[in-house]
Amino acid sequence: MKANARIEWDEIEIGEQLYLSGNTSGIDKKAWDKIVGNQVFLKAPITTPQGGGYKSLNVTMRKTLGLYANIRPCKSFHPFVATKHPEMDVVIIRENEEDLYAGIEHRQTEEVVQCLKLISRPGCEKIIRYAFEYARLYKRKKVSCFVKDNIMKMTDGLFHTIFKEIAVEYPEIETDNWIIDIGAARLADTPEMFDVIVTANLYGDVISDIAAQITGSVGLAGSANIGQKCAMFEAIHGSAPPIAGQNVANPSGLLRAAVMMLSHIGQQDVAEIVKNAWACTIEEGIHTADIYKENVSRQLVGTREFAQAVIARIGKQPSIIPVADYEKDVQLLLPVYARKTPAKKVLKGVDVFVDWKGGEVEELASSLQRLNNGIELTMITNRGVKVWPEGFNETFCTDHWRCRYEIPSERAAEKGYIPDLLRKAISENIDVIKTENLYEFDGVKGFSLGQGQ
Amino acid sequence: MKANARIEWDEIEIGEQLYLSGNTSGIDKKAWDKIVGNQVFLKAPITTPQGGGYKSLNVTMRKTLGLYANIRPCKSFHPFVATKHPEMDVVIIRENEEDLYAGIEHRQTEEVVQCLKLISRPGCEKIIRYAFEYARLYKRKKVSCFVKDNIMKMTDGLFHTIFKEIAVEYPEIETDNWIIDIGAARLADTPEMFDVIVTANLYGDVISDIAAQITGSVGLAGSANIGQKCAMFEAIHGSAPPIAGQNVANPSGLLRAAVMMLSHIGQQDVAEIVKNAWACTIEEGIHTADIYKENVSRQLVGTREFAQAVIARIGKQPSIIPVADYEKDVQLLLPVYARKTPAKKVLKGVDVFVDWKGGEVEELASSLQRLNNGIELTMITNRGVKVWPEGFNETFCTDHWRCRYEIPSERAAEKGYIPDLLRKAISENIDVIKTENLYEFDGVKGFSLGQGQ
Repeated sequence: MKANARIEWDEIEIGEQLYLSGNTSGIDKKAWDKIVGNQVFLKAPITTPQGGGYKSLNVTMRKTLGLYANIRPCKSFHPFVATKHPEMDVVIIRENEEDLYAGIEHRQTEEVVQCLKLISRPGCEKIIRYAFEYARLYKRKKVSCFVKDNIMKMTDGLFHTIFKEIAVEYPEIETDNWIIDIGAARLADTPEMFDVIVTANLYGDVISDIAAQITGSVGLAGSANIGQKCAMFEAIHGSAPPIAGQNVANPSGLLRAAVMMLSHIGQQDVAEIVKNAWACTIEEGIHTADIYKENVSRQLVGTREFAQAVIARIGKQPSIIPVADYEKDVQLLLPVYARKTPAKKVLKGVDVFVDWKGGEVEELASSLQRLNNGIELTMITNRGVKVWPEGFNETFCTDHWRCRYEIPSERAAEKGYIPDLLRKAISENIDVIKTENLYEFDGVKGFSLGQGQ
Repeated sequence: MKANARIEWDEIEIGEQLYLSGNTSGIDKKAWDKIVGNQVFLKAPITTPQGGGYKSLNVTMRKTLGLYANIRPCKSFHPFVATKHPEMDVVIIRENEEDLYAGIEHRQTEEVVQCLKLISRPGCEKIIRYAFEYARLYKRKKVSCFVKDNIMKMTDGLFHTIFKEIAVEYPEIETDNWIIDIGAARLADTPEMFDVIVTANLYGDVISDIAAQITGSVGLAGSANIGQKCAMFEAIHGSAPPIAGQNVANPSGLLRAAVMMLSHIGQQDVAEIVKNAWACTIEEGIHTADIYKENVSRQLVGTREFAQAVIARIGKQPSIIPVADYEKDVQLLLPVYARKTPAKKVLKGVDVFVDWKGGEVEELASSLQRLNNGIELTMITNRGVKVWPEGFNETFCTDHWRCRYEIPSERAAEKGYIPDLLRKAISENIDVIKTENLYEFDGVKGFSLGQGQ
């Protein structure tokens, strides 16, 4: 039986074999050219070698191609797949390009390693608008925002602010907001209270695995990575090298990703045929090992046999799982992000980070104060906690110190202050390892207080 | 009835009232003095005002006092408290001082906001050693490590490396390692497969809420915050201003925190009495609204009546929930962290971050190349993705560019290179917003590649 998809395809090799043959990016130019030329592709799980400097190719592809939206529908197939959550039907819409997945890490002292979390206005606007457009198109009732803006007031605060800004454009859609910790807890416990969830990259990674897993198996769900030009479709789950080639994996994740792909390219008719055949197979209890349960399943099959069972059911419709019925000839494409008129940015000082292995912070402070010259030392923190002026003996300190210099007036700091400060630090034997400029935007501080300040 | 705890106490006011009266840290000097003097305290949930520059006082107190270990036992009380996970008995041991909770955030361009994730060797060593010592003392069989080191190879990689280093000192304890996304998913689905979990601050925040929630209610669990000198005990849950003062909250979290406190100060005998009285109350079905279920509970009570029911059961022992039996006269105190002999640190270049709103990256690159002077421009990334040399048109770019300068030889970079570069950037009208120095440690790179590099 054939579903008669109207597609031609190229096969492309990426991943572990290329890494191990010396290509640190895991993908070669020929592969890139084909992907960019074809614009749409279905990707198998790939393995990033552990350790070493290898970057995750999954992340590289999502970001290089600008695939900003990761869509992960997680639905229970009760009573055919055993689950503690028979009612759940959640779509996670995960930001896909930024956050800690920028992968910018530095070690600058013996004791401390740093990773940058970057959150951008265009990144937030694009993903949040996508979530609301998705909800509108698929007739979803509610969009929930998951952030941790009680702690990360500026980064996660930006995400939450933009969520509230965009929500007002969709008055027919209900909204709410959850701190990620309790939100993830409620999702794990009572997923039926959620509908569409939009969140940042790392949180989305975690909660979409939770949501997929508690439907019964992480092996069931497909996912879409959507950009302005390109789109990539893949299973939610990652690779599982220990079972590769053994004909035991559940191909449902990849198959449902293919269904999403067919829908994306306007072949909703073919997508329905494949989805219905898959649903029949699940309903009839023909199950791979990950979802096989006695008294629920009827036949334990391997990867290949499962695929053959789906093929044999092409043209059939499921009797209890809802028959697939996709809106035809629609495509969800957002307008290109339009850059905003920038606020007035004024330099107010600089956070100078110092590698120092001494004991008494007063000693560090007095050598740092010798650099005062138009800008003045106002605070020292260690891992964010204020230790000068007026610190506590109880605070544990590493060799990584953030030393804040500010201009004590309403004026802007002169640009030359920072190189001057650094040059003077060298002559005072202060080991500066990094700097973070302090700005005001239209008079609003673009930097956080110290803890205890 | 009285449990006869051998304690005297002071009452201290902190939190929202102080914030709102103008003290931005939420705590005054008198309160600090008492806390530091007494060393041990029980803390009610406090509210951090949303928005504004207020830092979380919870985080400030944990970090200022060096309370590095957050212990969160999550156990089901089936059949007395309804839960989908009757067998679970997990202890989450969460790092409590660092990670993104350093709260160091900067906005330096119109579009991008940044938060620093800091992970330190002493931070990892202390929490991981605490987890293994805890497992040994409480006769737990397994310690699991939760990280995301396939993406954050240096920061989460350090945590994982130290986990493996310390694990070998405890050969009687089984260990395993989970990527946080699938680990959290398995915890949410099958918590009985975990015993002790040790993890970084943010992950620990999320998974401990999940674990507490799926026992039946986040209102049941207490938690300990342990430092070298001080210790703070609190409920796992946060504040709930909408129900404050209505006599409906479950006081179990705070009560069980008090039990942990009694145990910590060597009054295990009193701790047992209170814990057993609490267990009797739960067993008898005297429940607050959060855990009240028909056919499971017997009596719906308010906060005050629940507390009175516990008091009335002082001296009684539960019949099905195991009777509390704490090892007497033990205290879990680790040796003070000993600083390591530092590796040889050599400056190899600098990542210069630039605010630029132009269009063609070649234009940016050629103006940046004019700064080459002993160190040379080797790469430009945007949100971590390599865009020069050889970028892709498909990559979405913000106004936040990371421009890497490296010395093209085996030598060390001269310290003066960086201030010189910054001074020259000013004269070329390049808007440098921050710098990150690039170092090698004993010949190993202390900085990550770009994505696609």
